[in-house]
Amino acid sequence: MKKEQANRIRRRTLALLKKAHIAVTREEAANVEVADFGLGDIRNMGLELIIYQNNDRYCAKELVLFPRQTCPEHRHPPMGERNTGKQETFRCRWGEVYLYVEGEPSTTPKAKVPSKYRDHFTVAHEIVLRPGEQYTIPPNTLHWFQAGTKGAVVSEFSSKSIDETDVFTDPNIRRMPVYE
Amino acid sequence: MKKEQANRIRRRTLALLKKAHIAVTREEAANVEVADFGLGDIRNMGLELIIYQNNDRYCAKELVLFPRQTCPEHRHPPMGERNTGKQETFRCRWGEVYLYVEGEPSTTPKAKVPSKYRDHFTVAHEIVLRPGEQYTIPPNTLHWFQAGTKGAVVSEFSSKSIDETDVFTDPNIRRMPVYE
Repeated sequence: MKKEQANRIRRRTLALLKKAHIAVTREEAANVEVADFGLGDIRNMGLELIIYQNNDRYCAKELVLFPRQTCPEHRHPPMGERNTGKQETFRCRWGEVYLYVEGEPSTTPKAKVPSKYRDHFTVAHEIVLRPGEQYTIPPNTLHWFQAGTKGAVVSEFSSKSIDETDVFTDPNIRRMPVYE
Repeated sequence: MKKEQANRIRRRTLALLKKAHIAVTREEAANVEVADFGLGDIRNMGLELIIYQNNDRYCAKELVLFPRQTCPEHRHPPMGERNTGKQETFRCRWGEVYLYVEGEPSTTPKAKVPSKYRDHFTVAHEIVLRPGEQYTIPPNTLHWFQAGTKGAVVSEFSSKSIDETDVFTDPNIRRMPVYE
């Protein structure tokens, strides 16, 4: 991703955070993480993040999704004997999020996935999160999510985050932050 | 605390959360935790909380403080060999918070503590938190905090929370939530 595009995405991210009345420092604003998962299609498949804290014990992030932007299906695998994998709680702060996890599939899902990616979405049990609503995803559980038509801001509370070890269903994905 | 007073405090808490544009569910609103620390002086010494999540690995809460309301000095002690004590990150979402921890004392602190409690406040290294600013308190470190004149809303991200084991400087304090 070119610097100019990343900066445009950062500005859009900050505009959504402002709509959600979420204050960030100047330093956080300058360092918004833009994740396109190596797919080069940030409008459809991607996620914007501000990492508030990530230490050995807990992690807190603000996730921002543009309208209909999707975080692709993945799971957080066990990390040695004592760590069963990252557990995370998503709390919707603004907008609407459609979250999908393992379980009884929804017959009328609200999310719309572009057809070229559809094979890489295998779980379809739907949880709709509106502001103030939250859901906790157990470790090592497949999940993916998409924002509604206004976009969304979601607080993530979790155990330690090690994004590099996430296991994605789509083999084309590389999880690396886009910084430049 | 009488039920009527607790409900009045809950309504004030929800009004501050609304000012801060923080959405909560009806159930969370009905279950706001009012902590008066057994001092029976909630206007000066107390804290209002919504616990979003508290599991063995991480914890997330929203803390609400009325104007000049103070959370008394305490620390989170080690809990066995593997747990050095609760570590917590305070992120100011709205209003202003004056946080005091161990270290070089401030000569012109912004907080004002009623004289009858003053002996029970021993640390005075000041950190001022405005919206978007945050600070992480190491385990087993004495700390206390007070809201500015408008009150404050603070997100707390932490390791597992076991309030009953907190060690307070004031021997009159009993840490029990007021539910009725």
